[in-house]
Amino acid sequence: MEAKKSVESKSFNEQLRLKVHEIIFEADTPAGKGFDVALLVLIVLSVVVVMLESVESIAHAFGTLFLYLEWIVTVLFTLEYILRIYAIKKPWNYIFSFYGIVDLLSILPTYLSLIVAGSHFLVTIRALRLLRIFRILKLGNYLRQSQILVLALRASRTKITVFLFAVLTIVIIVGSTMYLVEGGEGSKFSSIPRSIYWAIVTLTTVGYGDISPTTDFGQFLAAIVMILGYAIIAVPTGIVSVELAKTEAKEADINTICCPNCGKYGHTHDAVYCKHCGHEL
Amino acid sequence: MEAKKSVESKSFNEQLRLKVHEIIFEADTPAGKGFDVALLVLIVLSVVVVMLESVESIAHAFGTLFLYLEWIVTVLFTLEYILRIYAIKKPWNYIFSFYGIVDLLSILPTYLSLIVAGSHFLVTIRALRLLRIFRILKLGNYLRQSQILVLALRASRTKITVFLFAVLTIVIIVGSTMYLVEGGEGSKFSSIPRSIYWAIVTLTTVGYGDISPTTDFGQFLAAIVMILGYAIIAVPTGIVSVELAKTEAKEADINTICCPNCGKYGHTHDAVYCKHCGHEL
Amino acid sequence: MEAKKSVESKSFNEQLRLKVHEIIFEADTPAGKGFDVALLVLIVLSVVVVMLESVESIAHAFGTLFLYLEWIVTVLFTLEYILRIYAIKKPWNYIFSFYGIVDLLSILPTYLSLIVAGSHFLVTIRALRLLRIFRILKLGNYLRQSQILVLALRASRTKITVFLFAVLTIVIIVGSTMYLVEGGEGSKFSSIPRSIYWAIVTLTTVGYGDISPTTDFGQFLAAIVMILGYAIIAVPTGIVSVELAKTEAKEADINTICCPNCGKYGHTHDAVYCKHCGHEL
Amino acid sequence: MEAKKSVESKSFNEQLRLKVHEIIFEADTPAGKGFDVALLVLIVLSVVVVMLESVESIAHAFGTLFLYLEWIVTVLFTLEYILRIYAIKKPWNYIFSFYGIVDLLSILPTYLSLIVAGSHFLVTIRALRLLRIFRILKLGNYLRQSQILVLALRASRTKITVFLFAVLTIVIIVGSTMYLVEGGEGSKFSSIPRSIYWAIVTLTTVGYGDISPTTDFGQFLAAIVMILGYAIIAVPTGIVSVELAKTEAKEADINTICCPNCGKYGHTHDAVYCKHCGHEL
Repeated sequence: MEAKKSVESKSFNEQLRLKVHEIIFEADTPAGKGFDVALLVLIVLSVVVVMLESVESIAHAFGTLFLYLEWIVTVLFTLEYILRIYAIKKPWNYIFSFYGIVDLLSILPTYLSLIVAGSHFLVTIRALRLLRIFRILKLGNYLRQSQILVLALRASRTKITVFLFAVLTIVIIVGSTMYLVEGGEGSKFSSIPRSIYWAIVTLTTVGYGDISPTTDFGQFLAAIVMILGYAIIAVPTGIVSVELAKTEAKEADINTICCPNCGKYGHTHDAVYCKHCGHEL
Repeated sequence: MEAKKSVESKSFNEQLRLKVHEIIFEADTPAGKGFDVALLVLIVLSVVVVMLESVESIAHAFGTLFLYLEWIVTVLFTLEYILRIYAIKKPWNYIFSFYGIVDLLSILPTYLSLIVAGSHFLVTIRALRLLRIFRILKLGNYLRQSQILVLALRASRTKITVFLFAVLTIVIIVGSTMYLVEGGEGSKFSSIPRSIYWAIVTLTTVGYGDISPTTDFGQFLAAIVMILGYAIIAVPTGIVSVELAKTEAKEADINTICCPNCGKYGHTHDAVYCKHCGHEL
Repeated sequence: MEAKKSVESKSFNEQLRLKVHEIIFEADTPAGKGFDVALLVLIVLSVVVVMLESVESIAHAFGTLFLYLEWIVTVLFTLEYILRIYAIKKPWNYIFSFYGIVDLLSILPTYLSLIVAGSHFLVTIRALRLLRIFRILKLGNYLRQSQILVLALRASRTKITVFLFAVLTIVIIVGSTMYLVEGGEGSKFSSIPRSIYWAIVTLTTVGYGDISPTTDFGQFLAAIVMILGYAIIAVPTGIVSVELAKTEAKEADINTICCPNCGKYGHTHDAVYCKHCGHEL
Repeated sequence: MEAKKSVESKSFNEQLRLKVHEIIFEADTPAGKGFDVALLVLIVLSVVVVMLESVESIAHAFGTLFLYLEWIVTVLFTLEYILRIYAIKKPWNYIFSFYGIVDLLSILPTYLSLIVAGSHFLVTIRALRLLRIFRILKLGNYLRQSQILVLALRASRTKITVFLFAVLTIVIIVGSTMYLVEGGEGSKFSSIPRSIYWAIVTLTTVGYGDISPTTDFGQFLAAIVMILGYAIIAVPTGIVSVELAKTEAKEADINTICCPNCGKYGHTHDAVYCKHCGHEL
């Protein structure tokens, strides 16, 4: 008797969990879609509130209102985070996934602001949650295109890392050389780290002009750095172009279903079992 | 008898309409070509006049002349707009087409300037009408090449949207972080929206230098944003390159004929009927 | 007798002309190569002299020497120009070719400086003559690669023109809008042409910062322009990438022989007659 | 007897040399790997020390410590350099290789600082030694990807040179024209070399704003230069994209083994003998 009851109650518990999972993680049913849209609205609202709060004149007028709003949204997000952990079979997979970490980081700053004043401005990290929008709104084409982009960027990762490593080496050497050439009393090239900052500003063609060479030889070196930066921007561009062409070629249709067991996405249309944990989809 | 007369008059009306359509919408007959060239000259003239009017010294000398010219051109354009609506069978298709909206926006600012002073400077939107130049001058190759460009950009639309969305998320988060790091009394990072403006200036490698980080940590963060911006410019570039290559491959010859019924372009050389509304071309 | 003599003298004249043609236009014989190298040295020398002359402290010290040098080089170049016209059968083909115009423009500024003071600084246009270097030094691979580049750019010409036309339209409209938004007493957006200059500075991501928006709405608009400029740089890049790939595919070996009749290049290795005028090569 | 002893001693010497070669040049054995990791740590340490030394406040506090550290590292690197020459059969191949020159340049500045004060800041050239990291850590994929990048860039070399030559010609002509247009009393376009510096800053879209045109015609010319720079960045990008696609296509697996005779890398997996000198691998 006891065992049976335990099974039944477990079964009820299981059903509740499936229901919650459906509402929170899927966007196919009316309840799930409603939940997701409400979530998006809340995210946008809370990001806008934090932005406005940083504008002094607005903060003076609506400060208290903004404070209430932020705490309400934070409490709601906290509840949602707890429900997400409850609803999924293997919570750790969710907690350490990209979206799991983003969801946690979205609520921490407000609690942190009780200890460190001002830190609640960091809640703009919530903007990252907006990236769910393509999946939530079932914008199939957008979802597939963004998956192609992510795949191509992932395939370019190694080459881009090598490229960034080479760029880092260049700016260190250029920065120290400019420190020797331009540095001195009253110069803005006051240390090697600052000169490296200048080298990055120049190589990436940003060119603030807050630090700029004044000697003839310094300007000559700077001109070489600029032309170098102008030419090597071709490297990441070429890398991504080639990878994107390759990725497009082997592109496969991928659906938007989320595994109820491990919470991962990226299953093909003909998949019956999760390719990550083997659970039925 | 009455019915017959009505048919005849309708037929006359119809003929007039076809004639007007030929002159205004097509560029194959001498009359049509003459009309189009006159139109281009008027557009260039009126845009140049508005530009010069904004230069104070010139406006002092020729203000009244410029005022007359602008009103003359505006009245002519208004007449043309009315004739365009009259000449086409399904006017709404024209009114809500890209060129229809541009044509309307080209005349509104002058009338608006009677109410809101200064708004007539917006007539430079007429410059958009110049985009007709390729079709009007029957520069076949230019027309085909611009259609390839438009097709490739349209095909990239989804990926570019995803990319811009990701960029927006990045600048929001970077902007708020910099506000926390650099903000404070007398800092130019005076609010999150202003910091986001700085993040966009930096990420796109524009780099005005009107706002630039002064603390060590701020400069370190800025350097990361610059390198990020320098690297991710590869993404739109790669997208457009791949789409352009694909579009070129399936490029088909398209003529410059405009449907007399719905006013749409883009028909292939062997088309006898409009592919949009089925009317004979 | 007379006729025969005339033929002989003509034949002698012809032989002289062929000899001069060989020395000046070809780079295969020792005499031709020597002439070309001497020419390059003279060009570099004269460009460097003009640059140094513009530096006040150096001009004070060596002004007279520089003046003599410039006149010597100019007279030599004038002689060379006359000989080129003499040596080729159809002089007008040379005179109106790219190199013919550059050669003329290289000597004009010095003569012009007799009338308009300062205009002799324009002799730096001689730098364009340096572009002959690849052909002169028989750097076969460089020559072929630069021909591929030129062919790809020529094939992209139409699309790039359409693109530049669209960019022009955008900066006109953006410029006038910013004039309305930011213009006013003391603003740096003092007229539409100046605002268009700002729009170009921003859209091309140059970003001097000599003019930058100060109002909230102005900064918002500027941010949109920056992101637009950041995204549409993908268009010319994509165009050139695609054309370059196509050009490489159909690349054919092209030699460096110059037609003795019309002075044009670009003949294939198996060509016996000039493809432009039919003269034997 | 003598001869035999000589052979034996030679053989012992040879064995020692092979052992040292294994430790210093290879990264397959524990000893070799340990050596390489220790080397990387030393390089990073010494680069960081030099950077911090340039920050005045830190230099005041730790100046003497930094001096000791730099000399210790330099002596160790000098020993390593001597051992490398000793361990390889054909030392000149190593000495004139890219890494050989970098290794020498890494120790010279410290010795030079005994003669020329301040020159020891140039030891940041040691950062170049960090490029070994991919080979050392046996990051196979990174190594192969960086080889693809290097191959593609080498294949683009000729086209890029032609491109840079054309850019150089453009900035010389643009610079002198702007000197004529904007130059004069109090102008920042004070000489042609400085105007060329401005032209490079503008064409590469860096745009410091330390020098910017103030006259109408100067701004008009600058706008043309900007649009030119914005458009021609497509050229290097296109070149690298095309070459990268070609290189990827013919990519072959290459291992990380170093020839014990000539010290060169780049052997394929099935290679038994060095393809450069024929020595057994």
